[in-house]
Amino acid sequence: MSRFTAVILLASILVGSPVNRLESALGPDNDVPGFSPDAASTQLETEDALFDLLDAKSTGRHFRYLTEEPHPAGSERNRRLAEYTRDRFLEYGLEDVQLLEYEVLLPFPREVKVSMLEPFEYEASLREDGYEVDKDSWSSDVGPTYLGMSASGDVTSEVIYANSGNPADYDWLESQGIDPEGKIAIVRYSMPYSYRGFKAWEAQRRGVKALIIYSDPAEDGYRKGEVFPNGPWGPESHIQRGAITYDFIVPGDPLTPGWPSIEGEKRIEESEATSIPNIIAVPMSWRDAKPILESLGGPVAPYSWQGGLPFTYHVGAGPTKVRVKVDMDEGRRPIQVVTGSIRGSEDPEKLVILGNHRDAWVYGAVDPSSGSATLLEAARVLGNLARSGHRPRRTLVLASWDAEEWHLTGSTEWGEHFAGELGKNAIAYLNVDSSTSGPDLAASAVASLNPLIESVARDVIDPNTRRDLFETWQRRREADSSGSGSAELVDNDLGSGSDYTVFLNFLGIPIANLSFDGPYGVYHSQYDNFYWMTHFGDPGFRYMTAMVEVWGRLALRLANAEVYPFDYSAYAKTVAAFLDSLTDIPDVEQKLDLTAARDAAEAWRQEADRLQDLVSRALDSNQPPAPGRFADLNQILLLVERQFLHPEGIPGRPWFKHLLYAPRYTYAAMSLPGVREAVEEQDWELASQQLQLLTERFETVAELMRQAQTLVPQTQVPAE
Amino acid sequence: MSRFTAVILLASILVGSPVNRLESALGPDNDVPGFSPDAASTQLETEDALFDLLDAKSTGRHFRYLTEEPHPAGSERNRRLAEYTRDRFLEYGLEDVQLLEYEVLLPFPREVKVSMLEPFEYEASLREDGYEVDKDSWSSDVGPTYLGMSASGDVTSEVIYANSGNPADYDWLESQGIDPEGKIAIVRYSMPYSYRGFKAWEAQRRGVKALIIYSDPAEDGYRKGEVFPNGPWGPESHIQRGAITYDFIVPGDPLTPGWPSIEGEKRIEESEATSIPNIIAVPMSWRDAKPILESLGGPVAPYSWQGGLPFTYHVGAGPTKVRVKVDMDEGRRPIQVVTGSIRGSEDPEKLVILGNHRDAWVYGAVDPSSGSATLLEAARVLGNLARSGHRPRRTLVLASWDAEEWHLTGSTEWGEHFAGELGKNAIAYLNVDSSTSGPDLAASAVASLNPLIESVARDVIDPNTRRDLFETWQRRREADSSGSGSAELVDNDLGSGSDYTVFLNFLGIPIANLSFDGPYGVYHSQYDNFYWMTHFGDPGFRYMTAMVEVWGRLALRLANAEVYPFDYSAYAKTVAAFLDSLTDIPDVEQKLDLTAARDAAEAWRQEADRLQDLVSRALDSNQPPAPGRFADLNQILLLVERQFLHPEGIPGRPWFKHLLYAPRYTYAAMSLPGVREAVEEQDWELASQQLQLLTERFETVAELMRQAQTLVPQTQVPAE
Repeated sequence: MSRFTAVILLASILVGSPVNRLESALGPDNDVPGFSPDAASTQLETEDALFDLLDAKSTGRHFRYLTEEPHPAGSERNRRLAEYTRDRFLEYGLEDVQLLEYEVLLPFPREVKVSMLEPFEYEASLREDGYEVDKDSWSSDVGPTYLGMSASGDVTSEVIYANSGNPADYDWLESQGIDPEGKIAIVRYSMPYSYRGFKAWEAQRRGVKALIIYSDPAEDGYRKGEVFPNGPWGPESHIQRGAITYDFIVPGDPLTPGWPSIEGEKRIEESEATSIPNIIAVPMSWRDAKPILESLGGPVAPYSWQGGLPFTYHVGAGPTKVRVKVDMDEGRRPIQVVTGSIRGSEDPEKLVILGNHRDAWVYGAVDPSSGSATLLEAARVLGNLARSGHRPRRTLVLASWDAEEWHLTGSTEWGEHFAGELGKNAIAYLNVDSSTSGPDLAASAVASLNPLIESVARDVIDPNTRRDLFETWQRRREADSSGSGSAELVDNDLGSGSDYTVFLNFLGIPIANLSFDGPYGVYHSQYDNFYWMTHFGDPGFRYMTAMVEVWGRLALRLANAEVYPFDYSAYAKTVAAFLDSLTDIPDVEQKLDLTAARDAAEAWRQEADRLQDLVSRALDSNQPPAPGRFADLNQILLLVERQFLHPEGIPGRPWFKHLLYAPRYTYAAMSLPGVREAVEEQDWELASQQLQLLTERFETVAELMRQAQTLVPQTQVPAE
Repeated sequence: MSRFTAVILLASILVGSPVNRLESALGPDNDVPGFSPDAASTQLETEDALFDLLDAKSTGRHFRYLTEEPHPAGSERNRRLAEYTRDRFLEYGLEDVQLLEYEVLLPFPREVKVSMLEPFEYEASLREDGYEVDKDSWSSDVGPTYLGMSASGDVTSEVIYANSGNPADYDWLESQGIDPEGKIAIVRYSMPYSYRGFKAWEAQRRGVKALIIYSDPAEDGYRKGEVFPNGPWGPESHIQRGAITYDFIVPGDPLTPGWPSIEGEKRIEESEATSIPNIIAVPMSWRDAKPILESLGGPVAPYSWQGGLPFTYHVGAGPTKVRVKVDMDEGRRPIQVVTGSIRGSEDPEKLVILGNHRDAWVYGAVDPSSGSATLLEAARVLGNLARSGHRPRRTLVLASWDAEEWHLTGSTEWGEHFAGELGKNAIAYLNVDSSTSGPDLAASAVASLNPLIESVARDVIDPNTRRDLFETWQRRREADSSGSGSAELVDNDLGSGSDYTVFLNFLGIPIANLSFDGPYGVYHSQYDNFYWMTHFGDPGFRYMTAMVEVWGRLALRLANAEVYPFDYSAYAKTVAAFLDSLTDIPDVEQKLDLTAARDAAEAWRQEADRLQDLVSRALDSNQPPAPGRFADLNQILLLVERQFLHPEGIPGRPWFKHLLYAPRYTYAAMSLPGVREAVEEQDWELASQQLQLLTERFETVAELMRQAQTLVPQTQVPAE
């Protein structure tokens, strides 16, 4: 039992047991967490004013402009969209509007070529077809399809089919005597998508000479439903572009790991950069991949490796022989980050940040222009709101990132650039990447934000169901889980794959990530365009606009709350569940003593419960808002997430400083990464050290909760 | 608590508790259940002599002759094979050899035609392709493909796709506003196969005008693995023929339900026959089905309905319009049953019956000729054995059935024909239909035969693994169930679909059903032929021959055992599990009182345990075999299975007289059918009546166990 636990147990005996109180100020029964009743009314008036300003036509106009032309990072068009964003921010009355440039590593392709030499000659088109009904699909500006950060080279070899390209897939091949070394591997994109960079990493580790990643119709094509232009799924020639940067090791410009790519800062050699792949990789449509797969010999692939093409998949090697040539330039290119603020009226130095990336692989209707249109409409609405007298108490920062598609570049460079100020003053980062591919709300966040996000979902009407989003969300979850209904609405397993990474993992800022999802099989293809969105994803721009409301209410509640609406009791419970989940790994119970960590997490939970009870009483007493009344308390609350940063990072990945989360190499979520990776490697000594680090942080946070309790203003509880 | 239970509980208190003894004479630790040690040695010598006689070349010669030409029921070729079988029986020294004819309803097709009229004209080939490497696939004798017992007619209508054609599939269509009434439905064969007659039954119930059943490549084609002639799975043009008789209502000749189709017996009108379908139905290859499915409009089919063809499946109705024409003759045709005996030396009136059907849809290599070759080789080996002095104590009857493929016809007519003698004297019926499509032993049986079957599997070496079959079987089961290893080896859930039905469900004779299984996608197609078997199913005829050994040892143990080797304790436990499984159905616990039935089953189990303990002691005393020593005991043991017959049958299906088993309409197993069907219909009164019937039978059987205990010869237990 730790020192803190003992104290707390004693304390709870003396005080009685407020820790079991189910409804707290930050709990689900309070409509607006962090507000006293009167302040909540004012807040809801502000949000009603926001609602009245929403205009789907305005969102649609932004969306149309954003998706008019291909706009990858580093392109002239994307720079023009940065200027458009800056101009709109200015037009809408945002303050401190800036267009910052970072010069980063963005190699563009000079040549990409895949030819089959045996058993017959065949040249892959590497192009996507045009469809008559959709003018955008006829564009000639799209350029060669490629994977960002592929190595350059020209290799010819026999082909093997390695399913999804995961370690277990190569293990199976090796069990059959099939050696991937020196071969060209063809693997399929996975659905739900796992990060293609992990496929490249694993192929490189296995000695594969070149990697082809293709879209199988079983994953995102005709097996899933109607294909473009008749439906939302991927047609025969659709190609999923994307980068393969090893940004699960370190994100951002590979040449400035941990510091910003600005004038005067050092740049490392490419050969030293750990996030640059050494393998040639090319994306492909199933139409191009079909002759390769169909001609493969060797053993029949396992049943679960069989895809949607009309033949039996074999794994090779050979007789198929293929040549893959990729020639990338060495380009460093400027990218643009645009920011603008709505300065806070009372605590202007405190920041709530709303961010979305602007760069697309082609037109990027869903990814990211739905989110960029949402950002621009949010700027219009929030700007107008401020001008009409509803200025937030704290500052809102709106950000348009760039080159997210490459290595989460813009947000990472900006986060590294302003690390000092952000570390001190950022309350939360709210990310919207693809805001809309359908009507299904999805949210992930640190668990302290769960009740706040749910409170917002209760106040927004779903455009389709005309019920509130929370109810719609809950019904869908219940239907998905066959009525068990036990699934949490907000996902607290945080991986990577979007711009919140620097805020969470490098800066220790609470984050949330929001989207409306739906059937979507044209990810990173040229068919992710205006036609797709207006026919399948979001006809009428209703969900893009609903996202303005969700995002806006969430930001305004964080910016205006009297007490920061973080539910640290929910957080502690989630962390306890993370600890429990370790025991699913074999031998953990025997080899690792989790008692101290569990006790510390429990102490944290109990202190958090007690704190929330005190805050709840203080807010319920409904005293008139007074500046600075909760200032000291808030200052402590702001420190909590930061406590989980470790200056040395997790073992082997110093950039990733958060002890509770890191992405797996697949981008999948991994909780307690230091402990978990050590346990998975059966390194019990390292696991124990990492667990000790965690335990200390839990104890520190419990202590912060206790300090915070002393800072809650005294209230007179009315006699009943 | 029932009367019997009370008595037994009292008895067990007085006697001590032998009921918990784990190892009994019939349990897994005795190598040869039912034999004393000395008798077991003699038996194993006999079985060794059987093993020495086995000859895979001889099996192969039979197999080659049997598969030389198509031989459906009612054909001249199948009559010649009956004569060949009779002649071999005579040559091998079998006695009482008979070739019996029954004239039964077997309509042959005059014309079968499917044409698509819209959206474009297309005539389905309804033929299977020839492949150069396989001369049999070029035969022109195959005739039009059809489904036995299809109605005649000529209909033109819009098409709907109804997935597998199950009730839930039509329910979903109706939920989408798609009415099957008057339409032509196309459905796919299911894998594992469910009975196509159920698809016809359900389609007829829904008002479908004609039914097309096709083989989707996801079920038994390229999605599963290499296709013929490169592998065991079905190629593009393969067609699964078969009958659609409603023999789940009543099997056998539809015009003589419950009595034999012999001279002088009544025949009902076709219009009165409940097992004759009123719907037109046609089987189809995926190649023929593709244009129909691909051109269907309407809603996208649910994800689980999507198959292996390279497009998104829609459900219609229309725009596809199809004409289906089937013209069947009214033919009654003679079928032939061949039987021969090896007369028993001591109890010749007591019978152990080994049966296999001879009729095929085309060449029928797996189904049934692998089993027919096994039967002929068994006749040779057992005949030789008898001639060389190893004559069994009881009589073995070998039977070659006919028209199993139509309505389990030959075995049913024969069983109805000799019902009196069989009811009195048959100890067990051992069925081998398709003996071999691969190396994986599968056995289903009444639970009283579990230990006997396992004892045989322990004494037979697997030709591939060179370990005993039991170990191979167990390892495979463990691998299939991911190491849980809990699955029972012998399957005690008995459905229908082969010739054991009349013996079990009409006559109450213990049955077993044996096969070696493997990857097999050419069921009921012309590719189920000699080439398929010698390249994929059983090169070298090693498993067909191993089945002779399994079948022969099992038959000889039943024929020679001093005490019939039925484990009624295992049976009682299985029945208790059947009762438990009722509670998986909603409301059963509330609406149906299972206490009395459970108590009665438990009483049966306890009495059976005590009986087996006594038998075990008697056998272990190893007294020299004396004729008649166990005669009275055996006579009681023979009565047990018969107790579960009810003269009126289960509600609505009077032919199915066994209260513990009946096939579902899909042929799937259904235990306690009277209770279960009533429960599923929420008819609690009927369920309660049926449960009462069962309870009485359990009590009767427990009483039989008690009587049997008194008939076990006294032995002196040696002092320890």
